Amino acid sequence: MAIPGPGYSITMRIAAPPSASAAGDLTSAVGRAGGVITAFDVVESAAGLMVVDLSANALSADHADEITDAVNALPGVTVRKVSDRTFLVHLGGKIEVTSKVPLRNRDDLSRAYTPGVARVCMAIAENPDDARRLTIKRNTVAVVTDGTAVLGLGNIGPAAALPVMEGKAALFKKFAGVDAWPVCIDSTDTEEIIRTVQLIAPVYGGINLEDIAAPRCFEIERRLRELLDIPVFHDDQHGTAIVVVAALRNALRVVKKDIRDCRIVVSGVGAAGNAIIRLLLHQDPADIVAVDIKGIVHRGREGMDPNLAEVASRTNKYVQAGSIHDAIVGADVFIGVSAPNILTGADIEKMNSDAIVFALANPDPEVDPIEAQQHAAVVATGRSDFPNQINNVLAFPGVFRGLLDAQARMITDEMLTAAALAIADVVAPDQLNASYIVPSVFDEKVAKAVARAVVAAARDGQHVAGGAKESAATS
Amino acid sequence: MAIPGPGYSITMRIAAPPSASAAGDLTSAVGRAGGVITAFDVVESAAGLMVVDLSANALSADHADEITDAVNALPGVTVRKVSDRTFLVHLGGKIEVTSKVPLRNRDDLSRAYTPGVARVCMAIAENPDDARRLTIKRNTVAVVTDGTAVLGLGNIGPAAALPVMEGKAALFKKFAGVDAWPVCIDSTDTEEIIRTVQLIAPVYGGINLEDIAAPRCFEIERRLRELLDIPVFHDDQHGTAIVVVAALRNALRVVKKDIRDCRIVVSGVGAAGNAIIRLLLHQDPADIVAVDIKGIVHRGREGMDPNLAEVASRTNKYVQAGSIHDAIVGADVFIGVSAPNILTGADIEKMNSDAIVFALANPDPEVDPIEAQQHAAVVATGRSDFPNQINNVLAFPGVFRGLLDAQARMITDEMLTAAALAIADVVAPDQLNASYIVPSVFDEKVAKAVARAVVAAARDGQHVAGGAKESAATS
Repeated sequence: MAIPGPGYSITMRIAAPPSASAAGDLTSAVGRAGGVITAFDVVESAAGLMVVDLSANALSADHADEITDAVNALPGVTVRKVSDRTFLVHLGGKIEVTSKVPLRNRDDLSRAYTPGVARVCMAIAENPDDARRLTIKRNTVAVVTDGTAVLGLGNIGPAAALPVMEGKAALFKKFAGVDAWPVCIDSTDTEEIIRTVQLIAPVYGGINLEDIAAPRCFEIERRLRELLDIPVFHDDQHGTAIVVVAALRNALRVVKKDIRDCRIVVSGVGAAGNAIIRLLLHQDPADIVAVDIKGIVHRGREGMDPNLAEVASRTNKYVQAGSIHDAIVGADVFIGVSAPNILTGADIEKMNSDAIVFALANPDPEVDPIEAQQHAAVVATGRSDFPNQINNVLAFPGVFRGLLDAQARMITDEMLTAAALAIADVVAPDQLNASYIVPSVFDEKVAKAVARAVVAAARDGQHVAGGAKESAATS
Repeated sequence: MAIPGPGYSITMRIAAPPSASAAGDLTSAVGRAGGVITAFDVVESAAGLMVVDLSANALSADHADEITDAVNALPGVTVRKVSDRTFLVHLGGKIEVTSKVPLRNRDDLSRAYTPGVARVCMAIAENPDDARRLTIKRNTVAVVTDGTAVLGLGNIGPAAALPVMEGKAALFKKFAGVDAWPVCIDSTDTEEIIRTVQLIAPVYGGINLEDIAAPRCFEIERRLRELLDIPVFHDDQHGTAIVVVAALRNALRVVKKDIRDCRIVVSGVGAAGNAIIRLLLHQDPADIVAVDIKGIVHRGREGMDPNLAEVASRTNKYVQAGSIHDAIVGADVFIGVSAPNILTGADIEKMNSDAIVFALANPDPEVDPIEAQQHAAVVATGRSDFPNQINNVLAFPGVFRGLLDAQARMITDEMLTAAALAIADVVAPDQLNASYIVPSVFDEKVAKAVARAVVAAARDGQHVAGGAKESAATS
């Protein structure tokens, strides 16, 4: 089912005899080994020797080795060097800090640094709100992690999490002109993480929590929201919830159902599942049934932590018990943020007509999406090689662009919902269909629409800093 | 004595009648009020009206008001708006975070972010030293402050300190290609500051402490050096000490004295004074006499803190007591990092022949440099409007360029001394004279020479990370 993608992309430097068939022999060997060729450049061509750089996508590191071996096995051919193109992209880091001001001569230095900077410092000391006007705080977000729940990799620690946080910072700038900086905290102690973020907060206009394991992440988010006068967003919760609500809104448009008539099954009650349920409840669905590894969550279940008890109290009107296979029967919507392959096509077949299936476990969904498509009207996954990718990149850049532009002091569910509806509405009625319920992540309209919606929601709720109303331009 | 400088620079938008003499009238009015005109642009010129932007340097905010009033008093002339050019430079902050990798399409995203990034994370999880190769750690420094000793402004807090830290980060990039990031800590508790820096350290290849009050700064520096495997540099101490040692080396060349024959008086035993004394002791001077607000520091003095007792034990061979006026008699070198106007020309006259005076208190030196010049052979200050400015910008960019290139795990006095000698040697023998003992901060050779010297000292001492020897290019 999988297709070789650019995540495993290699470039081989190959020395070959300069025969008429050499190029064809090389590309055939790569193709037979299952590689997808993306580039072929002749580096050197002499009487007895041809040197080429051949780039190809592979399925895995082992597959890349097989491709290399296949080329090496050709008569007279030698692979001199294999470069991993993914590693090349990351070499030396993916972001940099650059100056926005000229520093060409003494006058520039006197204005940007001493002695001129002293007056700017004093202005902020006298009026702390001026920090949002005269410093990077106006446009800067901390991307905070402890490295305990990185992608699907688990607890790999703060140093190993840094490549993800750098990537996130690059996306923030690319999609919304936001300056984001990685804060990788070398502690897994909840109190230490909270205190560290509180102590470094003066530089930032917002906090984006990232890849922090549940349930610690809930406490950290809740406490920081109390302690700080800048918005705190946990992307694994709220980013995912925003995009799910956006996608569901459009999926329901496709099948012409009203959410108030729908029973929604949510599989997984970690960071994402919790936030999805909370945000969906604002949409007033007929019912939500949450399921975790122990089965359906209901008021009568024993041994629930406070978080799960809260979910139980707000969902499952009919106090249904049982397994995921019981929950799915007759459901209108399935949203999975849990584990691979827990459902089959037979389960999906038992859902209500015009079923909607969001199987978001990564890299392997809760149900094979090809099977699901045979029984459901709309299917979405977290994968980039299927239609309808539920990707947080649709949400977080625009959300923070809006929060910073509004100089918001906090974040509310109204802002999250506004962001979701804005994403949904970027898909025009004539574009909307079962294979296109969310816009492309490369659609430049998305972040702008989300930012506008968040700014409007912030001002309606008056959750903004006093006095300062200017808006930073989106780059 | 003071000259209007670009630190107080205003731009007035002026509406004036379009007479033949209008431009002359405006510039004359500014000149009579003591302003120095730096730019004159006609914005609009119509039948009955001329609009011009006139930029001028002033001495102070009050002086800027006087200049504006003088222009407003001209017949038919109105100042519509006054922009403070220094504040304009700082608006929205002075640094930004930019992506070094392309993010144009799905393939780019797959390599820089998910799914490709997962392999890079796992490589670091398996071999932590790879963080110096595959992340921004390789080229990134934290500029850490608690805002307690910012410039001459004292304890103005972490938010008000941010404009200085941003400026520092801009200088790091401009002069040495180093990515630096402000860490403004909202605590004045020594233990909390230490712990916070320790917890955020995974992202950084070095720590630059900045504008933290003494004596707290000594404890913070010492403990962080023990705790971290990356170099910790306190610019107010070591940056200043490096440039002082560099300047003194060249000043001694000018007067043809050997430091081993010199008695050196150091006024001020705070962060800078302490570090200067420590670094000078490696140069084996005949004697150093330290003086603080209570007079000469000597072994017999009562009530000294451990830091001062340590200074007393290593200086003042003849256990001299008394005031700064006693210490200065017959001294070869005076180095002031203390308070304004504590000495007069008469004091300098009592120094040894060919005296060297570094009066570095800012903005007003320990002795009027014009008076000092009448009695000393070489005079230096911290001011940019006198020759021989002792400016830390000569040291910190190159020092960290060297530390990062060497992948140094710690910093030693040998590296600091190597940096000082490198700065001194950038001034060629035919350039050297009493008014040119340190190179210009805009001399691009400085940071490169310092970096080379620090790399060599780090490798001699083997204070570098194991295995990884590549050097990042200076941008």
